[in-house]
Amino acid sequence: MSIKIDFDMLMSTIKKALINAGMDEDKADICARIHAESSADGVESHGANRVPRFVDYIQRGWVNPHGEPVLVKQRGFAQNYDGNLGPGISNAVFCADRAAELAKEHGIGMVTLKNATHWMRGGTYAWKMAEHGKIGMCWIATESCMPMWGSDEPSIGNNPFCVAVPREDGEIVLDMAMSQYAFGKLGVYRLAGKNLPYPGGFDEQGNLTYDPGSIEKTKRILPTGYWKGSSMALILDLLASALANGKTGADLDDEKRGSCTGCSQVFIAIDPYLFGEKEDIQNKWNTRVKRADSAHPIDPDSPVQSPGENTMKRRMESMKNGVKIDEQIWAQIQSIADGNLDVTDIS
Amino acid sequence: MSIKIDFDMLMSTIKKALINAGMDEDKADICARIHAESSADGVESHGANRVPRFVDYIQRGWVNPHGEPVLVKQRGFAQNYDGNLGPGISNAVFCADRAAELAKEHGIGMVTLKNATHWMRGGTYAWKMAEHGKIGMCWIATESCMPMWGSDEPSIGNNPFCVAVPREDGEIVLDMAMSQYAFGKLGVYRLAGKNLPYPGGFDEQGNLTYDPGSIEKTKRILPTGYWKGSSMALILDLLASALANGKTGADLDDEKRGSCTGCSQVFIAIDPYLFGEKEDIQNKWNTRVKRADSAHPIDPDSPVQSPGENTMKRRMESMKNGVKIDEQIWAQIQSIADGNLDVTDIS
Repeated sequence: MSIKIDFDMLMSTIKKALINAGMDEDKADICARIHAESSADGVESHGANRVPRFVDYIQRGWVNPHGEPVLVKQRGFAQNYDGNLGPGISNAVFCADRAAELAKEHGIGMVTLKNATHWMRGGTYAWKMAEHGKIGMCWIATESCMPMWGSDEPSIGNNPFCVAVPREDGEIVLDMAMSQYAFGKLGVYRLAGKNLPYPGGFDEQGNLTYDPGSIEKTKRILPTGYWKGSSMALILDLLASALANGKTGADLDDEKRGSCTGCSQVFIAIDPYLFGEKEDIQNKWNTRVKRADSAHPIDPDSPVQSPGENTMKRRMESMKNGVKIDEQIWAQIQSIADGNLDVTDIS
Repeated sequence: MSIKIDFDMLMSTIKKALINAGMDEDKADICARIHAESSADGVESHGANRVPRFVDYIQRGWVNPHGEPVLVKQRGFAQNYDGNLGPGISNAVFCADRAAELAKEHGIGMVTLKNATHWMRGGTYAWKMAEHGKIGMCWIATESCMPMWGSDEPSIGNNPFCVAVPREDGEIVLDMAMSQYAFGKLGVYRLAGKNLPYPGGFDEQGNLTYDPGSIEKTKRILPTGYWKGSSMALILDLLASALANGKTGADLDDEKRGSCTGCSQVFIAIDPYLFGEKEDIQNKWNTRVKRADSAHPIDPDSPVQSPGENTMKRRMESMKNGVKIDEQIWAQIQSIADGNLDVTDIS
């Protein structure tokens, strides 16, 4: 069952839990804020829900709570860092901020990170670059969880691809994993006794299915757009591993850890006003978004929404009325904050 | 029915047709080669099949056969051109080459083009940047042909997104439209009396369907990955129209022409060896691609293939044994080459 918790209370409790798990205060502060914001935005799966699991990863040695990005090499607009398996969130926030600074100076900025860990909600970092007034793009190369098209065994990561547009009337943000549904989502539907709204993978007979349980059995989760999603996932892997001079998803498979431990990440920020005046570009974006949103809706009560448009509304609502959180997860976080580090991942 | 035509014969006949349609010899040469290569690679839909339609567009004034990219503004790594409605292929080849040159100098190069026209097969230009040894990315903002998610009327373009990786053992190339199937593909299946292999859109009852004819009726073509594809299409539109300081898809809708006339395009080339040694990166890519390709196949006779891997094999085969072409299309191209410009688009 879900309850609602005051945002500041949620954030400070997560922070305390992370400090108990061994994190320095400054990093715990950044990570707690992002976890709480993700939950406030409605992305619980990568928000508060992940805190117990993250603490578990610190204990396994998959995350070094003191790890920080160390500059390896730089070239004008681009910098390459070693993430030293530091906390995924604090490392990625650093990289997004650096990319935006480089873009301020050069028109474009690229920061790449090797030996990274799970950054939780990818959209956060594209959004961060957009808050700096830049177009933000980021993606990763991670371990396999999805079959290549034509195969029936996981052989490529679901490598998220995120892009944010700094529209002043509300950022437009794409946060797109290369699998149609996350495995976590399948579990949520199965536990609720529901079918998926659209086919999400293949059953044991090799047919497309809406049944989450049979996809969990075959592990044949559907790439986004069938053959397209596995191709794009491979391309993102090749790009991230080269540009970060880091590990490919196949390298991570060999290391047999999990959850993006050791992965490669790319952050690109671009000045949107290189060739047009800010006012013109903002007007252009407003007109384009309004036209998309005013397309005739299938359901008159559900107008079309561009991606990211409603997130800020949801966040404001959560700030006012409390952040939705599963009560078991909340109990776990409180328990860690109270000093009990014997974590079982129930998310 | 399809026949096979010698590559050089196909190319020289297309060139003659384009010159008859009013093109200068140098542009006709570039365009004829790319049309013929696309057909040789097995992408007939954007190869020879498009020649009659392209000639029709010149006659309508949608393409200016003498149009060339004119530099509007530049800033270090980035240049913005006005395409002046010149031939999509020759303009885009120019931009891809320029982006690669800029990347040679700056590590990254971006060329953007406003007032562009249909570039035919998008993958061509990513590939071209890869032939220059760079990672190549390109995409466009074009007119609406696909509903936004939640809508039942076309309100966003199927904006292709293309990325190529310069692997020396064979480029890996993503050429991904934001609709699951092109409308042209629906027609091919309908005429052959076949269902689509996977659902491709919605029928009049609002259900997902494999039947191409009922999707043609509703115009509710499925975005790649459902809600993901229409979101990504919108993002690509916002990026291309801003960076090219050109038209959005909504602007093109207002102009009521078609086929990308006046669209905005982006070409980005990145040096893949910014932070790693060439040999190491190439080895990394080879290992990653081999692992993807050796994933257990569903059908033992159809091993997994990474995108683009087989294209060069197909091209070599076409060079040796002739290029497959629909005989009616071939007759049309010959007729235009003979001076008959009364074109009916039958593709």
